[in-house]
Amino acid sequence: MITADVKYRVIYRDTDKMGVVYHANYIALYEIARNEMFRELGIPYTDLEKMGVMMPVVEVESKYKSPAYYDDLLTIRATIKELPVAKLDVEYEVFNEQGTLLNTGRTVLGYVNMERLRPCRAPQELIERLSEYFQQ
Amino acid sequence: MITADVKYRVIYRDTDKMGVVYHANYIALYEIARNEMFRELGIPYTDLEKMGVMMPVVEVESKYKSPAYYDDLLTIRATIKELPVAKLDVEYEVFNEQGTLLNTGRTVLGYVNMERLRPCRAPQELIERLSEYFQQ
Amino acid sequence: MITADVKYRVIYRDTDKMGVVYHANYIALYEIARNEMFRELGIPYTDLEKMGVMMPVVEVESKYKSPAYYDDLLTIRATIKELPVAKLDVEYEVFNEQGTLLNTGRTVLGYVNMERLRPCRAPQELIERLSEYFQQ
Amino acid sequence: MITADVKYRVIYRDTDKMGVVYHANYIALYEIARNEMFRELGIPYTDLEKMGVMMPVVEVESKYKSPAYYDDLLTIRATIKELPVAKLDVEYEVFNEQGTLLNTGRTVLGYVNMERLRPCRAPQELIERLSEYFQQ
Repeated sequence: MITADVKYRVIYRDTDKMGVVYHANYIALYEIARNEMFRELGIPYTDLEKMGVMMPVVEVESKYKSPAYYDDLLTIRATIKELPVAKLDVEYEVFNEQGTLLNTGRTVLGYVNMERLRPCRAPQELIERLSEYFQQ
Repeated sequence: MITADVKYRVIYRDTDKMGVVYHANYIALYEIARNEMFRELGIPYTDLEKMGVMMPVVEVESKYKSPAYYDDLLTIRATIKELPVAKLDVEYEVFNEQGTLLNTGRTVLGYVNMERLRPCRAPQELIERLSEYFQQ
Repeated sequence: MITADVKYRVIYRDTDKMGVVYHANYIALYEIARNEMFRELGIPYTDLEKMGVMMPVVEVESKYKSPAYYDDLLTIRATIKELPVAKLDVEYEVFNEQGTLLNTGRTVLGYVNMERLRPCRAPQELIERLSEYFQQ
Repeated sequence: MITADVKYRVIYRDTDKMGVVYHANYIALYEIARNEMFRELGIPYTDLEKMGVMMPVVEVESKYKSPAYYDDLLTIRATIKELPVAKLDVEYEVFNEQGTLLNTGRTVLGYVNMERLRPCRAPQELIERLSEYFQQ
């Protein structure tokens, strides 16, 4: 399992007239967390692009439990539970500073060969670097 | 069943560096379609607010099948399959001008009494106006 | 002079916790108006790309006079006052349904040769098509 | 004079199909920098709201010199040059990691009494706390 916590401070841009973070903006928070997780693993997403692979999002899910407000310092926790061989499945939990779980979510990303624009498997280098986290 | 088709023209703002509509932006397209559907039904969302009810999004799902590009004229089809008594469940399909299905999605909205800030059932007036669409 | 009016209905996504359209979102409204204006002129922006030219924004100004609210049907009026030879200078006015002027703005776009990635002049074809609007 | 530097890492959401940060998104970067500057000064914007004042944006300007790319770690430098008595005038410079100046901008915010919804002057407490930075 791989997990990473990323902080994000809510600005006016993120909120809507209900006074809370607009629901679609959580999906962008997931991207921030996913990016930072890969950077911390030593494989920034730009490296994957250099390996000739791009990773379109193929599925998103999000459940809203409690609102996030302006100026909240959110923690977005990203977790990978399975070695991402055929696809990258990441789960998210968003907490406020009081530790309240505000939102849970999930994104599935595929691998696409940038030259042939066709689905492919994860680059071998990625799998090698991540496999240590999934030893039994 | 209730269904409505809404058009949206993709601008630069909606796209990302992959050259396609950024995945989180589909969730805002769902809002556009949902709004217009309720307006066409003669119950704009602002009327619900006047009835003392707000409708936070409690769940979102989205599946990405094929990309949307800059300047595409998208059709977002919103469908309500069940009389929305306890919650409003809307399904979406996004098509391009060639009729290709690009994305499917679903949002679930709850009803919240704006005064007491507590979950409630749909306003009676809303249910009465919609019930004709769900006669067997 | 060239002018075009484009309609836009405000959704939750556009608003912030002050209950009004978030200031940065007006800049995207300008893009919507600019795009539609060029489409109406018979030269959609995608045609300019096919002529080998892209048009990065080099300057933006916006003045906020009165707020726009959720569900407002806005009119964005885009105006070109000078034949856009070296750069494209567009002015904007945003009105609500009551005709109140909410915002004025301006964008300046440059021309960049997509192959050489260098500034260039407007494509001859564009200038020819637009020059009829600027006869004295 | 008051100045503050804030970091921001570009994600896919921020980019457009030209492969660079979409112009309107710089305006939100300004908000991030402005917020953090006030937090560092010990007067988070939420404190101003508690003093009964809200601060709508009345003017925005932005000049784009060089593009920002995906994954760039940007520095947004916010500067206040005058004691913000009648309005808050903030200037911005955005740099990439190589120190290239990508963008300059400016926002003007007014003060509005939240109860009376009318323009007002800066809260006395704010001016007192900031005046030390503007001694000659």
